[in-house]
Amino acid sequence: MRPSGRAPEQTRDIRITRNYTKHAEGSVLIEFGDTKVICTASVDNSVPRFLKGTGKGWITAEYGMLPRSTGSRMGREAARGKQGGRTVEIQRLIGRSLRAAVDLSKLGEHTITIDCDVIQADGGTRTASITGGCVALVDALDHLVAEGRLKTSPLVQMVGAISVGVHDGNTVVDLDYLEDSAAETDMNVIMTDRGGFIEIQGTAEGEPFAQEELDEMLKLAKEGINYLFDLQKLALEK
Amino acid sequence: MRPSGRAPEQTRDIRITRNYTKHAEGSVLIEFGDTKVICTASVDNSVPRFLKGTGKGWITAEYGMLPRSTGSRMGREAARGKQGGRTVEIQRLIGRSLRAAVDLSKLGEHTITIDCDVIQADGGTRTASITGGCVALVDALDHLVAEGRLKTSPLVQMVGAISVGVHDGNTVVDLDYLEDSAAETDMNVIMTDRGGFIEIQGTAEGEPFAQEELDEMLKLAKEGINYLFDLQKLALEK
Amino acid sequence: MRPSGRAPEQTRDIRITRNYTKHAEGSVLIEFGDTKVICTASVDNSVPRFLKGTGKGWITAEYGMLPRSTGSRMGREAARGKQGGRTVEIQRLIGRSLRAAVDLSKLGEHTITIDCDVIQADGGTRTASITGGCVALVDALDHLVAEGRLKTSPLVQMVGAISVGVHDGNTVVDLDYLEDSAAETDMNVIMTDRGGFIEIQGTAEGEPFAQEELDEMLKLAKEGINYLFDLQKLALEK
Amino acid sequence: MRPSGRAPEQTRDIRITRNYTKHAEGSVLIEFGDTKVICTASVDNSVPRFLKGTGKGWITAEYGMLPRSTGSRMGREAARGKQGGRTVEIQRLIGRSLRAAVDLSKLGEHTITIDCDVIQADGGTRTASITGGCVALVDALDHLVAEGRLKTSPLVQMVGAISVGVHDGNTVVDLDYLEDSAAETDMNVIMTDRGGFIEIQGTAEGEPFAQEELDEMLKLAKEGINYLFDLQKLALEK
Amino acid sequence: MRPSGRAPEQTRDIRITRNYTKHAEGSVLIEFGDTKVICTASVDNSVPRFLKGTGKGWITAEYGMLPRSTGSRMGREAARGKQGGRTVEIQRLIGRSLRAAVDLSKLGEHTITIDCDVIQADGGTRTASITGGCVALVDALDHLVAEGRLKTSPLVQMVGAISVGVHDGNTVVDLDYLEDSAAETDMNVIMTDRGGFIEIQGTAEGEPFAQEELDEMLKLAKEGINYLFDLQKLALEK
Amino acid sequence: MRPSGRAPEQTRDIRITRNYTKHAEGSVLIEFGDTKVICTASVDNSVPRFLKGTGKGWITAEYGMLPRSTGSRMGREAARGKQGGRTVEIQRLIGRSLRAAVDLSKLGEHTITIDCDVIQADGGTRTASITGGCVALVDALDHLVAEGRLKTSPLVQMVGAISVGVHDGNTVVDLDYLEDSAAETDMNVIMTDRGGFIEIQGTAEGEPFAQEELDEMLKLAKEGINYLFDLQKLALEK
Repeated sequence: MRPSGRAPEQTRDIRITRNYTKHAEGSVLIEFGDTKVICTASVDNSVPRFLKGTGKGWITAEYGMLPRSTGSRMGREAARGKQGGRTVEIQRLIGRSLRAAVDLSKLGEHTITIDCDVIQADGGTRTASITGGCVALVDALDHLVAEGRLKTSPLVQMVGAISVGVHDGNTVVDLDYLEDSAAETDMNVIMTDRGGFIEIQGTAEGEPFAQEELDEMLKLAKEGINYLFDLQKLALEK
Repeated sequence: MRPSGRAPEQTRDIRITRNYTKHAEGSVLIEFGDTKVICTASVDNSVPRFLKGTGKGWITAEYGMLPRSTGSRMGREAARGKQGGRTVEIQRLIGRSLRAAVDLSKLGEHTITIDCDVIQADGGTRTASITGGCVALVDALDHLVAEGRLKTSPLVQMVGAISVGVHDGNTVVDLDYLEDSAAETDMNVIMTDRGGFIEIQGTAEGEPFAQEELDEMLKLAKEGINYLFDLQKLALEK
Repeated sequence: MRPSGRAPEQTRDIRITRNYTKHAEGSVLIEFGDTKVICTASVDNSVPRFLKGTGKGWITAEYGMLPRSTGSRMGREAARGKQGGRTVEIQRLIGRSLRAAVDLSKLGEHTITIDCDVIQADGGTRTASITGGCVALVDALDHLVAEGRLKTSPLVQMVGAISVGVHDGNTVVDLDYLEDSAAETDMNVIMTDRGGFIEIQGTAEGEPFAQEELDEMLKLAKEGINYLFDLQKLALEK
Repeated sequence: MRPSGRAPEQTRDIRITRNYTKHAEGSVLIEFGDTKVICTASVDNSVPRFLKGTGKGWITAEYGMLPRSTGSRMGREAARGKQGGRTVEIQRLIGRSLRAAVDLSKLGEHTITIDCDVIQADGGTRTASITGGCVALVDALDHLVAEGRLKTSPLVQMVGAISVGVHDGNTVVDLDYLEDSAAETDMNVIMTDRGGFIEIQGTAEGEPFAQEELDEMLKLAKEGINYLFDLQKLALEK
Repeated sequence: MRPSGRAPEQTRDIRITRNYTKHAEGSVLIEFGDTKVICTASVDNSVPRFLKGTGKGWITAEYGMLPRSTGSRMGREAARGKQGGRTVEIQRLIGRSLRAAVDLSKLGEHTITIDCDVIQADGGTRTASITGGCVALVDALDHLVAEGRLKTSPLVQMVGAISVGVHDGNTVVDLDYLEDSAAETDMNVIMTDRGGFIEIQGTAEGEPFAQEELDEMLKLAKEGINYLFDLQKLALEK
Repeated sequence: MRPSGRAPEQTRDIRITRNYTKHAEGSVLIEFGDTKVICTASVDNSVPRFLKGTGKGWITAEYGMLPRSTGSRMGREAARGKQGGRTVEIQRLIGRSLRAAVDLSKLGEHTITIDCDVIQADGGTRTASITGGCVALVDALDHLVAEGRLKTSPLVQMVGAISVGVHDGNTVVDLDYLEDSAAETDMNVIMTDRGGFIEIQGTAEGEPFAQEELDEMLKLAKEGINYLFDLQKLALEK
């Protein structure tokens, strides 16, 4: 039995709210149960130096947590003067994942920055960030088309992410904080809506995990992410 | 005529939502029109070194803006590796103002940190932060009483803040971004509900301002802040 | 009775020495009693990016204290690797105040940096910095005229600053360290010699202050600043 | 055909040299072809704060590259004033992986720091670091036993790591720089000599990868890592 | 002929003014011609960690230049967020040199920090800092005796420093900025009034220098430093 | 008797290995007994701003120590976020010394960076760095000629460095760590193979040193450095 009473293959209530704030080209509030992340997509008319003159665009991400998004207050990274290792790891993962959604050679020399700011944390902030960030990205690409800066959207495929893990001997999907902090194995799976893997990151927190556990986790992840693709499409149709 | 069509003495729609997030001892979303700030109050069982052993407590504040809370994206302070001068100025002002609300000698050796994070900015973020932060602070103090860590709340008085200015020759209250960026004079006034001033910061952006303008601005500020005290009380009674 | 024996409306002995060091385009030692600040004005042939190509100039300020300008040694900000919040607040105030002295649109694309370094501190370093910095600024502007880089000085008006406060129940002007550290209310007033206010910053350290106290403080401030304008003129006529 | 002429399941020449430098409790030079990493293990008689008084030990890792270990010179992280995101990601991975080798509750309150410094880079520096770092760790644990500070070594299992990927349509093991920079998918696999997975990190650089490719890569990885376990044992028997 | 018209063995006018500022335990303005440095000595009742419990004291130094002490304005190190290499080199030299003046084992567990802040620079700031810093140090030691915190002054010997160099083919003493920037060789010599060398730092800026030039430079340095010892004594007798 | 049993004028075994790593234009492992330093020379097709357009080149150096190159582990400078004072001092010395080897006006607008990374430390790392760095520099210059980017090598002279000191009353050459940490006087001497001095840095750690000791130390240094020139030539002839 999971602490939340959910079935092993059951995700939390997931909600995607578009146009959450008014300034950004794409702005999404995504909720995975009590985990709440604001994902904004901002368009800039320039690219990093290594892309100048190539006609290609770039997608990058930054991640932050409000100091009291967590059970006990975390020091503010801006005040400490640097981003922690966990933050750096997560924002690199988000950026890599979302670049897979777009044909950068058709984006023109624009940079889209996906900011994922966690308002309230309860496990799974990186998978929520990727899933919500992809919706904000679609809105920003459509904005570029609407403004005539691109003829067609360079979107290639949707990207979604979910966590799976082994908790108390059971393979489960979309772990909340209680499960996550006690899981034997924790894995984040990022896929495209065409069925391929973008990234797999699995870590044994305690006992090493076996091939069969890996197979089971991937099976649950595929089902969970397919559900996310449905939710993304519903949100984008509104 | 003000850009928003408001009368000179008319504030924007102001809303105060308590218990906005679940982890903090006090958590408030305050909205001054399109300006939206999350104010949380976090209690820590220690005090800065200069207060150790004195039995006194401390109240401090930190301020941040989400990168895309503004019209064009601002670089993330955590990524740039330091808080800018404007951030430092504002968080010192918030801290000073809210310390006036509390009898620190009756707070015990606790530190309460008020985090004010701007989700969406449209002028007046510092006055919204102080006004909303005071409500979060009251909730955190009541939490200490409810948990038996304090016998009675050391709250002395409510603190509220509003901006006034001279725009297009008229004295107006609660400037939004459009007015603020074109104002001749901009003044932030912080008061207590007993009628005294905590802080006055007035700056002539263009022409110096005269004593009569100062008097008019202070008059508008007093009326505006009294309205804020009503809203704070309404929110706290819910 | 004030600790120094001065009358409430009496400033300390104030001295302004021009050409204090030899390299800067303007160089002033200003003394407010035991408070001693070196103010230099340095001209640079470029402007911040947001002004490039506009034909306008810029005035900015930096502030520092020698580590042993104070009663107990303060850590050197260069060694600690960042400027503290108080330093940032003060140098932004000095810069804003002195920009009001000059018609930036007639300065050409020059930046003038006012460095205010406190050699010895005894209260009132920010008001001394602004008052002395304005004299150094005048000298730097005249230097640009003398060198033929500007046809006429873009000086519009002189700027002076003084502190007022409520100490031991009395309203007093130009507080020294002893008074400042015990004052109930502390206010810095910056004015132009045409009679307008540039900036007012009043803070209640203990009890909130009332409208009547504010009015009395502003009256004392106006008298004190008028005396500063006389001293500035005397110094510039030498 | 691979650029190096190797068969798909063929690793590069791998050499492990113990006691490479004289000061550290464990010191290993590991070479995966032209990739050369110095791995040292240093014992410290204290633990991070969250472990004080628990009787448990800790294992952590730091990673660096000599500026000219690479084809073109990289800026020195110490000179730039911070470790880059890639460095942070890698050293967290090394630390997590090597903690799985040891029963921390039997390590006593010691911290062992594994420093992995890349002398020459040609792809696979993180897998070489983990594989070599585990040997240095074993030597440091034996040193603690030899000195009488521990009764028996708390080593639980050996940990090894290898990269696999899809290059030019073929699944290959132990990618060198030429392959790595052109691979469609790149995966690092970390296992224990008891056969479980510690960590899997697979990233599609271009096209997403399919379940079958994942299965093939894991098969190659298992074979490769088993070979590494043989080499670790040989080195430790000398 | 030297640019200043001085004879090769002739120093600039050197002045030492004690009690230059009022807060520090020792405070000296030293002038070597147009080079002006404020040297303060501050006593702290603690020592660095490596000396705790040993009964020994410590002497350290910090060095800074006002931004406009030089011909063109230098960026403020506090604003840039770190001390430059030249600053670090100089303050380590000052600290090492002045530690030779004192029997640290008789200083008790006090740290004396010598702050050397350059008000105006014209070459030779490090030698002026050492020479003036030694006088401030003597005053701080005497202050400890006067306050009864030490029975006798732990001063062992006076320390003085002067620059010598080869300029335009001639060996000269106490180079000013004009000479310094054109010198073939530049050497700083630090000695004690008992005749021994504390430190010699000679650098060929252009052509390497020969043994004979070295010998000549050291001869000039000895004469120059003996003159400094006379000036130090005169100043201390006042 | 020296701790190592060496005669006063006897250096340690010194070995110079060229082409130690494969990427750099010059790459040398230099060993002074147990002190081992990797020196690489990297060519960049640009120069610092102050040289742009002058046709001149630049040589600079950076220095680092692996965290466990020393008896107890030192914190990694990249992790602490800044280079320590000792590092800065040393790399400035290496850069200055090696610039003397080359006619920068014949180098073209190239920058050569000499990286000296200490793999194992046992005293004398800075003299080993300079001596080995000069060989790497020669290789980089020859590489520029071989590639046709320069017609002839702008090498003017070889540069070598050795330490001398007074240990236990005796003047000795090439101090190892045991001697260095107990020496009364420690001096680094840098010379050219034409017989001139580039730099002399002598420091009395305890008692001041006398002219006769200085003369003896310089005599030993000259002999030692001449031996280094022989070793450099032998290495370069291979």
